[in-house]
Amino acid sequence: MYRDYKKKFQNSVIPDVKRVNLYYDILSPYSWLCFEILTRYKSKWRNMDLRLKPLSQEDVLKGAGNQLPGNVPIKMQYILQDLARLGKYHQVPFKIPADLKDVMYVKGSRPAMLFITAVDMENPEYTEELSRQLWLRVWGKDEGITTDDDISQAASKAGISKEMVVKCLNKAKEPDVSARFKVYTDEALSLGAFGTPTIVIHNSGKKEMIFGSDRLDLVANFIGETYEGPLNDLSKIKQ
Amino acid sequence: MYRDYKKKFQNSVIPDVKRVNLYYDILSPYSWLCFEILTRYKSKWRNMDLRLKPLSQEDVLKGAGNQLPGNVPIKMQYILQDLARLGKYHQVPFKIPADLKDVMYVKGSRPAMLFITAVDMENPEYTEELSRQLWLRVWGKDEGITTDDDISQAASKAGISKEMVVKCLNKAKEPDVSARFKVYTDEALSLGAFGTPTIVIHNSGKKEMIFGSDRLDLVANFIGETYEGPLNDLSKIKQ
Repeated sequence: MYRDYKKKFQNSVIPDVKRVNLYYDILSPYSWLCFEILTRYKSKWRNMDLRLKPLSQEDVLKGAGNQLPGNVPIKMQYILQDLARLGKYHQVPFKIPADLKDVMYVKGSRPAMLFITAVDMENPEYTEELSRQLWLRVWGKDEGITTDDDISQAASKAGISKEMVVKCLNKAKEPDVSARFKVYTDEALSLGAFGTPTIVIHNSGKKEMIFGSDRLDLVANFIGETYEGPLNDLSKIKQ
Repeated sequence: MYRDYKKKFQNSVIPDVKRVNLYYDILSPYSWLCFEILTRYKSKWRNMDLRLKPLSQEDVLKGAGNQLPGNVPIKMQYILQDLARLGKYHQVPFKIPADLKDVMYVKGSRPAMLFITAVDMENPEYTEELSRQLWLRVWGKDEGITTDDDISQAASKAGISKEMVVKCLNKAKEPDVSARFKVYTDEALSLGAFGTPTIVIHNSGKKEMIFGSDRLDLVANFIGETYEGPLNDLSKIKQ
């Protein structure tokens, strides 16, 4: 028996699957970048069991005593340039919102994130594409993500039925959705998060927390895979 | 003639050399990481003409209205963990100074950086190895970099003669060295720098400013080369 087993696998590598949690908020453009790259690698990195963890960036920042880099104008200018370059290189079609402060500090992403959470609890197979469609609105087309209509349009593009949209818009207002949203936020904070994206790699009981979209070679290294750059051919963005 | 020229080069790629300036301060551990990786790639990326630009991180931060991340304790904790992991992955032997605040905020790196500048003006062939030896002291062994004796020891390990050490220790106190140090600092600030390392790629009259050690794939892309990870085999650190 064992010999048969060995024979069967001797020329193939048995994946050593590790859970990789991506904590994100669609208000964060670097989270979008990270999300697109990791979802492209899903089919390539057999060792990665990618789990999406929608949370509140605002609450993570508050909880960690951190803030967005908006208070250093020169840094903010750089970030916009950095996003444009990284977007071009990774084919993530960033378009900076005309009224960035309003989008980031006034409107926020709470209704959209609660809706993603509701969908994730009801029909998690839509979480990825729904998140992508909401990102495409706010960081790709400078469109709203706060009204029921905004959210419904993104949901419809993600293939979610009208009935499910109505159900999840209602569910998003229920305490169990807020509670799950808070659980993910607190989970990230307890792991040392101070912003998004935060990636947590689970490996033999050990948890490695990585901040940002610029350590994916290190993520690869931790799970025994190789980072090969943007993989633009595997882009899932269809505009 | 032209045919001969074409024949000679038909099977080789003529490098399209681009100047890549690395602005750094040995007080910055991420600058060390960036410096080690880029100096490893010097022999591999024929398109890169790497120039070392020692400057004052303190003055860049001040000039840009920025500060070190020490004021967010959770972020600082992460940075120490991040350095340990990145150091291991890239074989850069980071050792966090026991009294980090004293090293960063009190002692600083000014005498060492002025000495590097003096050496760079007199004998630039030693700039790279001298910088490495000073980094090895402060970020690799938790040794001082402020006294003449500290600096002389690093210089000696970099192969600089006793006579030249004395000459450059004196020169480092002269106004022309302070002036060149300020020129590089102002140059970085004028290009939008707000910390170190700052990389500036010169390409057909256009200048691309990149902050941090985590965009080297983008640097490669800008100069028409490929980033292949840490290249640990090419490490120049001999302890």
